[in-house]
Amino acid sequence: MKIGFVGLGAMGLPMAVNLAKAGHEVRGADLNELAVAALAKAGGHPAGDPADACVGCDALLLMVVNADQAEAVLFGAGAAETLPKGALVIASCTQAPARAKAMAGRLEKMGLKFLDAPVSGGAVGAETGSLTIMASGSADAFAAARPILDILGGNVYELGDEPGLGSMMKTVNQLMCGAHIAVAAEATQLAAKAGIDPALAQEVLMSGAAGSWMLGNRGPRMLQEEPAVTSAVDIFVKDLGLVLDAGKEARVGLPMAAAAMQMFLAASGLGLGKQDDSQVIRAYAAMNGVKLDP
Amino acid sequence: MKIGFVGLGAMGLPMAVNLAKAGHEVRGADLNELAVAALAKAGGHPAGDPADACVGCDALLLMVVNADQAEAVLFGAGAAETLPKGALVIASCTQAPARAKAMAGRLEKMGLKFLDAPVSGGAVGAETGSLTIMASGSADAFAAARPILDILGGNVYELGDEPGLGSMMKTVNQLMCGAHIAVAAEATQLAAKAGIDPALAQEVLMSGAAGSWMLGNRGPRMLQEEPAVTSAVDIFVKDLGLVLDAGKEARVGLPMAAAAMQMFLAASGLGLGKQDDSQVIRAYAAMNGVKLDP
Repeated sequence: MKIGFVGLGAMGLPMAVNLAKAGHEVRGADLNELAVAALAKAGGHPAGDPADACVGCDALLLMVVNADQAEAVLFGAGAAETLPKGALVIASCTQAPARAKAMAGRLEKMGLKFLDAPVSGGAVGAETGSLTIMASGSADAFAAARPILDILGGNVYELGDEPGLGSMMKTVNQLMCGAHIAVAAEATQLAAKAGIDPALAQEVLMSGAAGSWMLGNRGPRMLQEEPAVTSAVDIFVKDLGLVLDAGKEARVGLPMAAAAMQMFLAASGLGLGKQDDSQVIRAYAAMNGVKLDP
Repeated sequence: MKIGFVGLGAMGLPMAVNLAKAGHEVRGADLNELAVAALAKAGGHPAGDPADACVGCDALLLMVVNADQAEAVLFGAGAAETLPKGALVIASCTQAPARAKAMAGRLEKMGLKFLDAPVSGGAVGAETGSLTIMASGSADAFAAARPILDILGGNVYELGDEPGLGSMMKTVNQLMCGAHIAVAAEATQLAAKAGIDPALAQEVLMSGAAGSWMLGNRGPRMLQEEPAVTSAVDIFVKDLGLVLDAGKEARVGLPMAAAAMQMFLAASGLGLGKQDDSQVIRAYAAMNGVKLDP
């Protein structure tokens, strides 16, 4: 297949490289020229801009940051009108379900297929082709996308034929991820305040029914003063914002997500927005007067 | 060792049986005569009441429901004054850290050792001797308790020499467990409301960073109309109550635990207090108008 790829960031670049290595002709565009060059070195083709990436392509994969960027690429930079009639657009950015639905409607009117297909699994999942892909769209869109999805994803979930369901599933996923980080931080700081060694407390918690993927992954970094940033506090300000917007739109009260959002907002307000999301514990430590450092 | 054992319920009976099978002389007391008879059949000795269970014992293990029952056994029913000087009391009930501390002070004045040692792992952990034991107390108390703990526990954590730390660790554990059930319910009902098959949504969530022990264990029962009761909604009304009391006492704000408590209270108010704690999802379904049943 001939595949346009826009958004060659920490996840997009390895995804595009994997498609090229699997034998597809991948035309990549990004504002970062180094990323475009890296793709070209790995067997892809450099494109000057999003429209150029789409010339003669069977499919366009969008791995940009959000819905605004995706719309700018598709409708502002001319990607959609450059794609041949009948081509497929796969949107893998994290966006509000309503935005994915609107995007689908607009593209389908132009004679294009659309798959709403956000991903999770981070840079590691992107590199190893083991992403979780949460997809929805027509049978035609799935059929056209299948060769691409199988290369990128370890688990490809088909959530229905309505665009927006994929993005809603990603939203639900981020609800749990964000809330679990806040719960892990809340528990860890309570243990520390009570005089229990917080690392030991996390070990006890992980050994039984209190365990979560996030406690295991973020817990240790909660106890480091300046941990590596795998995903920033402000990413959860954005993602829990999408969660609460989706709840508002659907008229669904989400008390746990709402409480978690307040803690990420507070952490961002403390100046920690660019730090690792585990540092939400600093908002707890500040408000409760807990000393975390030995 | 000669061990008194009071509280032969779903967890206490298999624990007492395991101690008897390991060669200890176990004197068991419970209001339920069938449980006392079952222990006798398995090699234990029936005791008529708590004081009788303590005659000549090296240790007393309390596996009653809460601090009130533990105090009633120790000081109302004469267990503490029956124990020989220097004997050990192990309190494995779930109780407020402050109550465990007060209990320790009172027993130490009577010349007894005390280990604050709540457990988790449920009936299965009790039967297989693989409980997680969260213990604190003096080196003397730990030394005396070690042969007993090693039979009952898979993981025995030593949290410090101050009574109350064991109960605080259990409190922190229950914070995470209760909050995780609420988060799993909140995510599941949002997926259902949006038109995603909730069982499929749970599968997607468990496959990645959103997973928790509770989602895996309670999630499937959230989608059953009348699931088996492994632990009731009202147990978390009690346990999250202990969490919030501990937070109040220590002046630690716990927004995630507080939000979870409201949902368990609401579920109890809907008449679901005796149902499986997974049914907290019914409170979400009621408030958000979500149809969970196919």
